[in-house]
Amino acid sequence: MPFHQYFNGEIFPIDAELFKTNDLGLLRGYGLFDYFRTYNGVPFRWDDYWQRFENSAKLLKLKLPLTQEETADILADLHALSGEAEVAFRFVLTGGYAPDSVNVIQPNFLIRTEALPQDNPAGRLKGIKVLPYEYVRDLPEIKSTNYVHMVLMAEEMKKQEASDLLFYKDGEISELTRSNVFLIKDNTLITSDQNILNGITRRVVMELAEHYFKIEVRPVTYDELMEADEVFTTSTTKWVMPVVQIGNHHVGNGETGKQTLFLQKLFEELVGAWGK
Amino acid sequence: MPFHQYFNGEIFPIDAELFKTNDLGLLRGYGLFDYFRTYNGVPFRWDDYWQRFENSAKLLKLKLPLTQEETADILADLHALSGEAEVAFRFVLTGGYAPDSVNVIQPNFLIRTEALPQDNPAGRLKGIKVLPYEYVRDLPEIKSTNYVHMVLMAEEMKKQEASDLLFYKDGEISELTRSNVFLIKDNTLITSDQNILNGITRRVVMELAEHYFKIEVRPVTYDELMEADEVFTTSTTKWVMPVVQIGNHHVGNGETGKQTLFLQKLFEELVGAWGK
Repeated sequence: MPFHQYFNGEIFPIDAELFKTNDLGLLRGYGLFDYFRTYNGVPFRWDDYWQRFENSAKLLKLKLPLTQEETADILADLHALSGEAEVAFRFVLTGGYAPDSVNVIQPNFLIRTEALPQDNPAGRLKGIKVLPYEYVRDLPEIKSTNYVHMVLMAEEMKKQEASDLLFYKDGEISELTRSNVFLIKDNTLITSDQNILNGITRRVVMELAEHYFKIEVRPVTYDELMEADEVFTTSTTKWVMPVVQIGNHHVGNGETGKQTLFLQKLFEELVGAWGK
Repeated sequence: MPFHQYFNGEIFPIDAELFKTNDLGLLRGYGLFDYFRTYNGVPFRWDDYWQRFENSAKLLKLKLPLTQEETADILADLHALSGEAEVAFRFVLTGGYAPDSVNVIQPNFLIRTEALPQDNPAGRLKGIKVLPYEYVRDLPEIKSTNYVHMVLMAEEMKKQEASDLLFYKDGEISELTRSNVFLIKDNTLITSDQNILNGITRRVVMELAEHYFKIEVRPVTYDELMEADEVFTTSTTKWVMPVVQIGNHHVGNGETGKQTLFLQKLFEELVGAWGK
């Protein structure tokens, strides 16, 4: 694979050893990231992803070393080097090297090129199972690198044939480990605005849905979710993914709902035509 | 500085670039660490630190690649290479390189040699100020690399001339960002057993104190702390550090307490004679 990566001003092969060991991302979990991909060779919703990345950096008080335009040029170079029609990009911004292991001096900025995700395409048709998990993400608005519970529970998820965790706390749900949650009840689309990451796919789906559905953006209780007609989750890799089972509970009749498939189709049409 | 570091079987100069960029510590915050030092050239309470490290690794389901004996040999080599009489060691164990950025395959094990900490020795006499901060550490028993709030608040602490944050939640206190908290009230030493890291210095201080004080290990409320005669914090770098101000509140008469200084002296005698 000729994938490459950008790190602090230079381009390297993707498996190069780049990080010194006093990086605050590594030592203190002080880092954030973002992740997006191309459709028809064009980065999807680049302005939105950049804006979110910029916002995460601001919230962690990290100065971005590049402008959006400079970064776009690097993306184009990395894409060309890959030799692939489509690629995914992963931004990682850490607190940088810290002699005292506490104070930020100069952030480290990494851009990885990665193969397109193969995130359970079969699941888009038959739906996935998720495990309810009592947790609320710390600083949820920041796309930080803190995914300890996801990695910790990876084995248990496999054992229970589940694809992801559904975070809930104090009777309210927030999100899955890396994706937002929607429920449909009586032709109303409902999604939480509390303790969530501001998903770009979530936003796109709401834009697409507003012509067909009533939309409510507000706190969502666990009980509501249990009584939903349909549930689905959205992310860069999952698109519009039906959730048909939550722990032992079957959503609706336990099969992928028609309205979810309708929204899925709208999203697929949008990305299919992206950049054309 | 001839400090070196061990990484996955080899010894490197301390500023070598060692980490590939798909490490789960870097991408997902999936990592843990430990930190200890020598006195008179001998690692302090090595068995205790190793046991804690082993326990953290077990809780994060990471297999340690070395035994305690193998690791001790590496510590001796690193110490010799440093040319220093005393050194500090930092262990870092991450989830390792993950092609899918989720599942652990093989942890990465790093041992850094570092210069002895210069953590505010003047503070040991006149005491430090801390800022109350509403937060409770996630998975507190694990010495994970998640210190986002500490780094995030570093600037604010400087502005308020504070040395650290005091975590509290729902009326109970837990710990500072990297150290445990004790209060003294009427000759009783009280420290929390909830939502804390199991500090080695905390344990040592309790061993030293039990000949002189009544000791209570139980949940501690914020209100109790406000009414304490003396407050201090313990860690590998802080030893027994008086806390004389919590936000705008002055502990006792606002000066370092006699009993704190007594415990500090006991600790200093212990480490002064360590290994002799």
